[in-house]
Parts: sequence; structure tokens; C-alpha cells
Amino acid sequence: MPHENGPSFTTDSFHRGRFHLVQPAGRGHRAGLDAMLLAATVPGGFDGRLADLGAGGGAAGFAVAARCPKAQVILVERSAEMVDCARRSIALKPNAAIAPRLRLLQADVELCGRARVEAGLADNAFDFVIMNPPFNAPEDRATPDALRRQAHVMEGNLFERWLRTASAIARPRAELAVIARPASLGEILQALSGRFGSPAVLPVHPRPGADAIRILLKATKGARGGLRLLHPLILHGSDGHAFTQEADDAINGRSALFSAAQGKTIAPARRRPT
Amino acid sequence: MPHENGPSFTTDSFHRGRFHLVQPAGRGHRAGLDAMLLAATVPGGFDGRLADLGAGGGAAGFAVAARCPKAQVILVERSAEMVDCARRSIALKPNAAIAPRLRLLQADVELCGRARVEAGLADNAFDFVIMNPPFNAPEDRATPDALRRQAHVMEGNLFERWLRTASAIARPRAELAVIARPASLGEILQALSGRFGSPAVLPVHPRPGADAIRILLKATKGARGGLRLLHPLILHGSDGHAFTQEADDAINGRSALFSAAQGKTIAPARRRPT
Repeated sequence: MPHENGPSFTTDSFHRGRFHLVQPAGRGHRAGLDAMLLAATVPGGFDGRLADLGAGGGAAGFAVAARCPKAQVILVERSAEMVDCARRSIALKPNAAIAPRLRLLQADVELCGRARVEAGLADNAFDFVIMNPPFNAPEDRATPDALRRQAHVMEGNLFERWLRTASAIARPRAELAVIARPASLGEILQALSGRFGSPAVLPVHPRPGADAIRILLKATKGARGGLRLLHPLILHGSDGHAFTQEADDAINGRSALFSAAQGKTIAPARRRPT
Repeated sequence: MPHENGPSFTTDSFHRGRFHLVQPAGRGHRAGLDAMLLAATVPGGFDGRLADLGAGGGAAGFAVAARCPKAQVILVERSAEMVDCARRSIALKPNAAIAPRLRLLQADVELCGRARVEAGLADNAFDFVIMNPPFNAPEDRATPDALRRQAHVMEGNLFERWLRTASAIARPRAELAVIARPASLGEILQALSGRFGSPAVLPVHPRPGADAIRILLKATKGARGGLRLLHPLILHGSDGHAFTQEADDAINGRSALFSAAQGKTIAPARRRPT
């Protein structure tokens, strides 16, 4: 709903009302499906420290905190306006139960070395790093609004810079999860090299038969296994706008993606925890 | 069926009897699913010159010639024993209809420059290049038999060397198709760079919910588009050993994979030509 006074914000409900987010109305990057899918890569029992890099208004980090009752989440975002939104979200009464496990850090993910540490991103500090980098290539679409452009437009070698930071702040064996476009897969695999191994890719298709529109990728710091390609997530059926049960469960915080059952069984298929 | 005299060979039927292959019995690389899937990447109307690199006994190239009535196929293989098998296959009576469109070339795919040209692989000579490189990593499995090892064991940077040759012998806008393990995708994408673009990946899963065991990748020489990830091919249902209709059609030469409908429609799903 739009706010009645002051700068134009909306407050939107996620996970069927389990948490709410304050977002800029009609400008900036508005959180949605991508953030919810990214959050669904974290197992429900995760009880460590998680960094949400390029958190925007904090949607993915909030979703992790809402679904994983013991997770400690730090939201890292360079835009003062988006950090302000996240601060307003943390202060919302309906978020009181998860707010104590959320922290804010205004910092540029691309900082290196001492500058990064001084900005508050210490080495070996996190058990899980998630990121939804600004992945629309410059030529993809016109973004007349500067704030939205900042969130959407990728410059060359972005994944190299973001994964350098992710690797530095991650503990050994920490997990990484990324949401990106399929076209970025080659660049991501190169940037993982020597940092995170045993990558698993979960393609996300809008409908049966259509190309993937996103990939979710998980990897483990210091692991050395090769790429696994999981059975995909299909968002919608062949007709209509309804989400598939599996997509709906993931988006609304009722189950995790990349579950132990997924991709390891030979038969029969068991993709959702029972 | 095993042959009664001489060195031990078998003659096996493919595409439901449309062609037959002579293969070494109990030794060497025996053709099967991978070669048939690779051949299914070629559109039925293809009427140009196709090179099957590392052809072994020629299974993929034979399958292309059998399904595409105007295709001219050259089988490139360095092993004298496998080339001998292919020669015996070409001479088989049931293959008489396709034999005139099949040629044999004993040569090492990894030859460079003048040595490659002198071996019979000229620059800019092919409209389509297919390859099923020896893609089991050395540590993957013990292969006590030297001939089988030669066909199965990959050494470092294999895709770099094979795609260098593929690019050299391909005409501008020629198509490339590769079958490989998912773990090789990063190496393949790097080796494509500057040679073949607009790659499309078709993951091949044994059953719903199981990890992909193979990827089929197509790309176009000189194209510049990003990676597409297609809705996967599933070989079997959740139970039993029967192939899915789509897999059975592809393996038995009744339809092509990567069809125009596949991966381009939003809804409804249409993966098999009607």
C-alpha cells in the first residue's frame, strides 16, 4: 500500500504476510521473485551468519531471516536510499520477530582489501553469502531512472569483483548462492575458479518448454567438485498465471530449493521435502 | 550379434534397423546413447557437409546420414582399429543407401595448422561440426583396456584443442554440436570464446529430479549471442526403464533436438515437432 505522507514509499507483504518491506514507490529496484528464489537456496536449519551482498531494500535477507529462525543476516548495500528503506523495514512492527537478527551495512560490495575490512566486511566472517547482482547488461533495456539503473546495469567483470569479495568474507566451507541470467554462467564459472567449488546450477524456466530466464547457483568455498546441473524449477504450468506448487512453496518461504533430495535421487523424483 | 570368424566384432542395429555398425566386441568404445543424442542435434533438412570429429566407429555420423537424406558426412578418427570398423560398416549391405554420403578420414583431431590441412582437414570446409570427445576425466574410472582408455580419457584442455580444430574447419555461420558431461561446461564455454557464439545448452537428465548426466551444446561460428539454457531432455520416467517419447524419438532418428519450437515459445510447451 502507498504511504500517505512524506516521500513516496510502499509497504509490501511477502511470504504470505510473514514479513513486510518498505520500498520506494515507482522508482529504484523493486524486490520480487528473484530475491525470494535466492532466499530459498538457504536450508531452513541454517543457523550461522549470512551476508546478503547488494541487498537493495533487503528482500532476500529478510526472507532468509523469516524462514530460518536461527540465521543471523547482514544486509550489505551501497545505495543510501535503499539502506534507508531497509532501516524503515526493520522498524516495522510486523517485522519485530525477525528484526533482532537483521543488521544493516552501507558499503560497496566491490571494495577491496583494507577498504573493505574498514567498511565493515571482515575476512572469514560469514557461513553463507547470497547475492543478486545487478545483472541486466547495459544494452538490454533503457532505464531512465538513475536509481533503477544503478541496481540493474552490470558492468564488465562484475562477477569477478563480487565473487572476490564473497570469497574473502566467507569462512572455509561457507556456501555461496547467486541468482543470475543464464548468459552470465560462463563469467560466473570463471570467477568461481580458485574460490568456490562444486557448483550446482538450478535452471529456472517460466514454463515447460521455454528457455531458462534465471539460474540459481550454489557453490562451496574451497570445494573442488565439478559442475552439477539440477533438474530445473518451472515457475508456471503450460497455461495460466498460477505458480507451480514447487515455485509457490519456494517463493513463499515454505520450502528450500537445492534440498538434499533434489538432484541426488535416481528414482523416483522427489523435489519437495515431505 | 557376434561375428563367427576373425577378430571379434559385433554388428549392431541402430535407428530401429535403418543402419548397422560393426564394432569391436568387448573392447574399445562402444557406441550408444551419446552418439545417437549428438546426431539428433542436426536438423532433418540439413543438406551440407558435416564433420564428425573423434567419430570412433562412426555411430553419430551414420545416424546423421541416415536421418538427413542430403547430408554429406566425413568421419574423422585417429584410431586405425576404429577406422577399420567404420570401413566395415560402410561396406555392409544394409547400409548401401547411406554409404555413398559417408567418407572416412584417419586423422588426429588435435593436429594444427599445416599438419591438419595436410591430413585432410581443410579450413572453412564444413557447414556443421559434431563432436563427442573422450570426456571421462582420468580419475573417473579405471579403464584397463588401452583402446577404451584412448576413447574415454580426457587430458587437460581437450576442449580448447578440439574446438580450435572445429573452428578452423568450419565455414562462417557453421553450426557446432557437442555432447559432454555437465562438469565440462565451464571449459567448453571458455574454449568457444572468439570462435563459436550464441551457445544453447540442452541438459540431459536420466529421470525427473535427477542431476543431468550429459549436456548437448550447440553454437554458431562467428555468432555473438549469450548462453541459452533450454528446457531439458528427460530420458526415462520416474519408474521403469522405458525411454520417454521425446528421448525415444531422438535416439531412433525420428526427430531432431533443438527444434525451432523448443526453447522459443513461451506457452504452451511444444518440444516435439508435430
